[in-house]
Amino acid sequence: MTTQIQKAAQGIITDQVKIVAETENLPVDQIASGLIDGTIVIPANINHLNLKACGIGRGLRTKVNANIGTSSDLVDIDLEMAKLDIAQTVGADAVMDLSTGGDLPAIRSRILEKCTVALGTVPIYEAGVMARQSKGSIVEMTADDLFGVIDRHAREGVDFITVHCGVTRSVVDTMKKQGRVVDIVSRGGALLAGWMVYHDRENPLYEQYDRLLDICREYDVTLSLGDGLRPGCLADATDRAQIEELLVLGELVDRARQAEVQVMVEGPGHVPINRIQTNIELQKSVCRGAPFYVLGPLVTDIAPGYDHITAAIGGAMAAMYGADFLCYVTPAEHLSLPDLDDVKNGVIASRIAGHAADIAKGVVGAADWDQKMAEARKRLDWEEQARLSIDPELSIQRHALHKTAGDACAMCGEFCAMEMAERYLGIKTARC
Amino acid sequence: MTTQIQKAAQGIITDQVKIVAETENLPVDQIASGLIDGTIVIPANINHLNLKACGIGRGLRTKVNANIGTSSDLVDIDLEMAKLDIAQTVGADAVMDLSTGGDLPAIRSRILEKCTVALGTVPIYEAGVMARQSKGSIVEMTADDLFGVIDRHAREGVDFITVHCGVTRSVVDTMKKQGRVVDIVSRGGALLAGWMVYHDRENPLYEQYDRLLDICREYDVTLSLGDGLRPGCLADATDRAQIEELLVLGELVDRARQAEVQVMVEGPGHVPINRIQTNIELQKSVCRGAPFYVLGPLVTDIAPGYDHITAAIGGAMAAMYGADFLCYVTPAEHLSLPDLDDVKNGVIASRIAGHAADIAKGVVGAADWDQKMAEARKRLDWEEQARLSIDPELSIQRHALHKTAGDACAMCGEFCAMEMAERYLGIKTARC
Repeated sequence: MTTQIQKAAQGIITDQVKIVAETENLPVDQIASGLIDGTIVIPANINHLNLKACGIGRGLRTKVNANIGTSSDLVDIDLEMAKLDIAQTVGADAVMDLSTGGDLPAIRSRILEKCTVALGTVPIYEAGVMARQSKGSIVEMTADDLFGVIDRHAREGVDFITVHCGVTRSVVDTMKKQGRVVDIVSRGGALLAGWMVYHDRENPLYEQYDRLLDICREYDVTLSLGDGLRPGCLADATDRAQIEELLVLGELVDRARQAEVQVMVEGPGHVPINRIQTNIELQKSVCRGAPFYVLGPLVTDIAPGYDHITAAIGGAMAAMYGADFLCYVTPAEHLSLPDLDDVKNGVIASRIAGHAADIAKGVVGAADWDQKMAEARKRLDWEEQARLSIDPELSIQRHALHKTAGDACAMCGEFCAMEMAERYLGIKTARC
Repeated sequence: MTTQIQKAAQGIITDQVKIVAETENLPVDQIASGLIDGTIVIPANINHLNLKACGIGRGLRTKVNANIGTSSDLVDIDLEMAKLDIAQTVGADAVMDLSTGGDLPAIRSRILEKCTVALGTVPIYEAGVMARQSKGSIVEMTADDLFGVIDRHAREGVDFITVHCGVTRSVVDTMKKQGRVVDIVSRGGALLAGWMVYHDRENPLYEQYDRLLDICREYDVTLSLGDGLRPGCLADATDRAQIEELLVLGELVDRARQAEVQVMVEGPGHVPINRIQTNIELQKSVCRGAPFYVLGPLVTDIAPGYDHITAAIGGAMAAMYGADFLCYVTPAEHLSLPDLDDVKNGVIASRIAGHAADIAKGVVGAADWDQKMAEARKRLDWEEQARLSIDPELSIQRHALHKTAGDACAMCGEFCAMEMAERYLGIKTARC
C-alpha cells in the first residue's frame, strides 16, 4: 500500500491527511473520504521527504501553481532557484519544473532539495530533449525512452506529472478536420501529435496507460492528465478537439481510480468568460468530480504584458464554478521569459483569483480574512492592514509614500468620509 | 431642446449620435432609440466643445473611467494634467476630476481644456471645501451653496456629475440600525449623511431633485446617481442600506427620464463574486435598464497594492452581466495617491475587464480583435501582435528582451509546440 487512496481506503490516517486537515481547518474524515472518492488529491511522492503536504480538490482552498524552468536559450540554474524561492515565499502551493535546457536531472535535483511544496514536471520534455541530443530529433524518442524518464522522475520524488494521455490519433484527426486558428500550443501535445504522425502509431501514454499507472502507484505520483489540444486562443476555445480529448481524459480518470492512483485533470487555456462555467461543469461531470487544474484561463488574447490579469479574471471565475487548482500566468506570457518580478506577480494574481473564488465557494476561513482586513481598516490600524495584506511589504512601502501625521491617510486628506461619518453620525469608523 | 433625449425624441440625429454610431459600428437608429428609452446615455455637455462624444449603455462597448484630482495634501496641477494625458492616451473613455485641494475652478478649467473625453465631477466636494474655507466646517454648506456649484460645473462644460441623491434620512437610519463593519466610504455620501444629522434636514439633492434636473436639462449634463452608502468591504456588501438606496435611485431614474435628462446609476464597490450577477440584475431591474456605472467592484479586501486586479475580476463579471461603465481602480487604492503608472495600469486593467466582457456580450467587433491577434500569432508576425496589443509599447519592449534569431521566440526555444506541429502535422502554425 503506497498511495494516499489505498491508505485512506484502509482507514489509515496518514501524516499528509492530518496536515491537510489541519491546514484547511477541516475534519480528517472529510479529507480521507475526498481521497477515496477522487474529489481530493494530495500530491505527495513517497520520496519527496521535505514536502509539506497540500490537498487539492472539493471543499479545499483553491491552490496555485507556479511554473519555473530553463529553456534552451536561457540556462541559469541560480535564476531558477531564485524563482523557486520567491514563488514559495509569496505563497505558491505547487511548483512545476518545466526545464528544457541544460542538465535537466541536475536542475531537478537542486529544485527538489529546496522545494517544500508539491513539485510537478512534464516528463516528455526531458524525453524529447534527450532524443534530440542522442538521436538528432525529438520525434526519434521511443515509448521506452519516455517511460524511462517518467520512472526516473517518480523515483526522484516528483509529486505530480503532466502526461498528455488524451492526445489520441482520433482527437488529432478531429482537430485537423475542424481546423483551428492556432492549432496546438501545448508543447507535450505537439510532440505527441507529431510523434504519432511520424511513427504512424497511437500515443504511447494512452496505449500503455497501465504502465503509467504502475509507476505512479509505486511512488504515489499524482497524475495530472494534460490537455494537449487545449485551445491557444479564444477563437479555438471549447471546440470539438478540446471536448473530445476531455472525454478521453474522463475515461482515464476512471481507470486511474480503479488502480488507486491519484489523478487530476488539466483544462484550458483560453476561454471567453461566458463559457467558463460550461467548461468547468463539463469537466466536473465528465471526469466525475476529479480535481480540475486550469491554465489561466485567459479571457482575451489582446493583452500580452498583462496576462496575469487576464488569467486572474478567468481563474477567479473558473474556481468559483469549481476549478480547484490554478496554474499561474505571468506578465511575461506570450512575450518573453519570466523574471523574478513576473513570478511574484503571477503567483499573487492567481492567489487573489483563488481567494476571491474561495469567498464565493464558502471555503472555510476565506471570508474571515477579508472581515479582519475590514475591521483593521475601521480601526485605522495600518500595521495590521499591512500584516493582513497579500503582499505586506508592498503595502508598507506604498502606504509610507503618502502617510500623513496622525491617523488620517493622504488619499482624501481633510476630505475623509470616515472622519465625517465619525464626527457627524456618531459612528466610529475608519478612513478608507 | 437641449438634451440628447429631447432631440432623439424629435427625430433629430445629432452629431454626437452620429459619432457614437460610427465608433460603435451600429446604426444611428439604435443609438437614438437607446437614448429615448434611457438604456444609453451620451454625456455631452453643450459647453464641452472639444469633446469627442462617447455612448454608454446597452449594446455598446463597455466604457472605462479614470479618476484624477488633487487632494488637500497634494496639489500639483501639472501632475494631474499628466494623469489626464496618460489616461486619455491609454484609452480611458471618461475622466472624473475629483480634486479637493487647491484652486478647484482653475484646475477644472485646465482639465476641460485638454479633455476630449467625457468629464465628470462630484460637485459636493467643491461645495464642502468652500464651506470649510469660508465658514470653518464642511457641514456649514447650504443647499444653495451646493446648487450654486452644480450650476457652475454645468455651465463650464462638465459632462456628467455624481450626485448622491439617494442618501435619504431613511436610508441612513437603515444603515445605522443594521450596523456595518466600515459604515460609509463614499465622501459625498458621508458629507450628506453628516449634513442631514447636523441640520436635522433631508438630503437637499433628494428634496430639491427637480432643481437638479432643471440645471442638467439646460446644459445636457448627464446625472450619475451616486451610491453614497455603497459597501466599503465584502462584509457589508449587498446589505439593506445599499439596496434601499438603490430603490430610491430607481425612482429618481424615472423622474429624470420624465424630465428628459440623461441619467445613469452608480453601483458598488465591494462585492463577492458570487453576488455580482445579483447586483447587476437588481440594478437593471429596479432602474429600468439605466446604464450602470460600477466602481470596480472589488472582489476581495485583502489585496491592497493589487486592487486594479481585484477590480478587473469584478469589472469583467459585472460587465458580462450588464454593467456598462467601469470606474477604474488603481494599484494605489487603499494605500496612497496614484502616480502616473498607477493611472496607466488602472485604465488598462479596466479596459481588459471591459473587453473580456464585451466578447461575452457579443459587442460588435469585440471578438474580431482577438481573432486578429490569434492570426498574427499564427503568422509569427510580432510587429502586428504588438500593434494589436492593448499596450503596444510594453509588448515591443518585453518581447525584445528575449528575441532570438529568426521566427522563433525564446520562451520555448528549440522546444516549440508550433514548430513541432508545423513540421510533423503539416500544419502551418505560429509559435506561442
